[in-house]
Amino acid sequence: MSAPPPRVLSERKPIAVSMGDPAGIGPEIIVKAWQQCVGQVKAGAAVQPLWVAGHQSFFLNAIKMCAPGMEIEVLATAADAAQFWRDNPKNDRLVIVEAVPQPCAAGVPDPTGIDIGVVSQAAGMWAARAIEVAAHACMAGLAGGLLTAPIHKVALERAGYDYPGHTEFLQALAARAKGVSPAAVPVRMLLANPSLQTVLLSIHVSLRAALDLVTVENLFQTLQMTHDHVPPLHAALRGESRKHPKIAVAGVNPHAGESGRFGDEEQRVMVPAVAAAQAAGIDVTGPISPDTVYMRARQGEFDVVIAAYHDQGLIPVKYLGVDEGVNVTLGLPFLRASPDHGTAFEIAAKGVASPDSLLAALKWLQRWSI
Amino acid sequence: MSAPPPRVLSERKPIAVSMGDPAGIGPEIIVKAWQQCVGQVKAGAAVQPLWVAGHQSFFLNAIKMCAPGMEIEVLATAADAAQFWRDNPKNDRLVIVEAVPQPCAAGVPDPTGIDIGVVSQAAGMWAARAIEVAAHACMAGLAGGLLTAPIHKVALERAGYDYPGHTEFLQALAARAKGVSPAAVPVRMLLANPSLQTVLLSIHVSLRAALDLVTVENLFQTLQMTHDHVPPLHAALRGESRKHPKIAVAGVNPHAGESGRFGDEEQRVMVPAVAAAQAAGIDVTGPISPDTVYMRARQGEFDVVIAAYHDQGLIPVKYLGVDEGVNVTLGLPFLRASPDHGTAFEIAAKGVASPDSLLAALKWLQRWSI
Repeated sequence: MSAPPPRVLSERKPIAVSMGDPAGIGPEIIVKAWQQCVGQVKAGAAVQPLWVAGHQSFFLNAIKMCAPGMEIEVLATAADAAQFWRDNPKNDRLVIVEAVPQPCAAGVPDPTGIDIGVVSQAAGMWAARAIEVAAHACMAGLAGGLLTAPIHKVALERAGYDYPGHTEFLQALAARAKGVSPAAVPVRMLLANPSLQTVLLSIHVSLRAALDLVTVENLFQTLQMTHDHVPPLHAALRGESRKHPKIAVAGVNPHAGESGRFGDEEQRVMVPAVAAAQAAGIDVTGPISPDTVYMRARQGEFDVVIAAYHDQGLIPVKYLGVDEGVNVTLGLPFLRASPDHGTAFEIAAKGVASPDSLLAALKWLQRWSI
Repeated sequence: MSAPPPRVLSERKPIAVSMGDPAGIGPEIIVKAWQQCVGQVKAGAAVQPLWVAGHQSFFLNAIKMCAPGMEIEVLATAADAAQFWRDNPKNDRLVIVEAVPQPCAAGVPDPTGIDIGVVSQAAGMWAARAIEVAAHACMAGLAGGLLTAPIHKVALERAGYDYPGHTEFLQALAARAKGVSPAAVPVRMLLANPSLQTVLLSIHVSLRAALDLVTVENLFQTLQMTHDHVPPLHAALRGESRKHPKIAVAGVNPHAGESGRFGDEEQRVMVPAVAAAQAAGIDVTGPISPDTVYMRARQGEFDVVIAAYHDQGLIPVKYLGVDEGVNVTLGLPFLRASPDHGTAFEIAAKGVASPDSLLAALKWLQRWSI
């Protein structure tokens, strides 16, 4: 097994933030989060350098509503932003890197013409371009990690980006940069709240299709990626120094199949994959009954649970509230985290959206990358 | 739609408790629970009449260990127990109705010869007979509800009772008493903790098989049974008087399929079943994304969630701890609740098992049946 890549987020490199769908709550929660960061610095906390990919007009509206008096610094490129932070390590302006979409048939969509709370091609074009600019900055070494605000998939699709979510979009960007196929950049989704982490064997497919993705190869690769990249949450909470996480594999079937009575995935797939991983030095236990393994992990027995399908892992992570949830992509050439909620069109630009989950994702990036 | 049967547990009728597998923690947690009940009566609470189906030898051991000085009253039949409670409404003895198994080839198994913490045919025979005696007492109108301590399925199977769990066993007993097939006694499992209730579309089958059970007929029948029998938890917590629960249907697929992108169960099955139920006057919403509907219900938006499969409902119910979990069977001719944990052979007869979940189940029966 190769040595795990360092989890170091260079102190000099800012975090790149993609603004999300500008018709949703993205700009607003970014402004609120930055306001809190600045407030914490005034109270003695360290500065967290960051910049946002997007367009100033979206942020000026949000600042007017949520943080009157906040100043912005508009720059043309990620390199400019990195230089700006080197020159201004105590900066308290919101730094914006203009991420202008490629023109469509109708030209570059006017950022001031986007209706808040409405799905549109124009908003999708701005959202997609912000992701590209921020991700490319990470891959070029100009940013230390990527924080993504929520996007709307239909808007993205109308803009010509047909991905089920951020994860697949970023996987495609990374693959293109490497000159390989997306399948050659295996990624996994990690969901975390303050006391539970779970890595998903599959994400945006039907539950029937997810069952077909429970294979020895998939599980073994997931265990390797989890061992290499996922922090030892509970060890850290207890103050123990452990390098790798203690992993649990959740079964697929009720009671983990009760020795093959209800379904065979545990015996056929999970037992051999877990044995192979243990032989490779990975600290892993399972398969364990799905209905108790998340409770046991929350109580500190495991640092991370491998979920056999999307909702098995997401239901417990979100149960105590989405504001605590963080979504992390493992396997990309950079660290990427996002809040665990959507664009919330229905409350966009009303000033009521909470930045808590975005701040939780920022905190996750800060905590585990230093 | 037929009028809901009354949820009244007659004040004069005691609750029948089946002792569970005597090699597990059943007798011990029953003794501890009864001790707490007696203590609460001394502190001013109302007496909750109950009796246990089993054999005194199991309870004498548990009393010696956990509640020295507790007295027992051993009776031959459920009718004797009902009479005893009428004659002694302030009784503080643990009432035991002897439930002696049918002899096997080797005769009636000696209750003093059962090894604690070990799976055995003899323990299975005693456990099964306790369930039969307690359930028949309910069906004969001699007990007002059934509280079941945990059984071990392998022991039960060795004793000749090949059921995946209590639910199917009780369904078969009810069917036999009615002279119909078990399929003619549709049952559903309700899982509850203090802030969440969920009814399962299927239970002890593989996840693949569970997907085939997501049908319009099953969902519609489940909605009817839920409407008729499940209490309006959050309305009651808020002090509102509502007769029927506010129901949410959880989707099957990630994000409830996103309009058919990931799986078709939502469009093909759930949308028409929910529409039919709404037309029949049932207060139901859905399908809703599985990863947030349990959080929303916990926060008070819904009284009960219909889970599309076993673990979708059990993971959130157990997430905060099994001690709070209660398992209720809907559709039987009597009320039945059980704690949400197993026989815990590894800690049996060590005096450390917690009666909290058994007490939660008893409290559920008391609360919603009066």
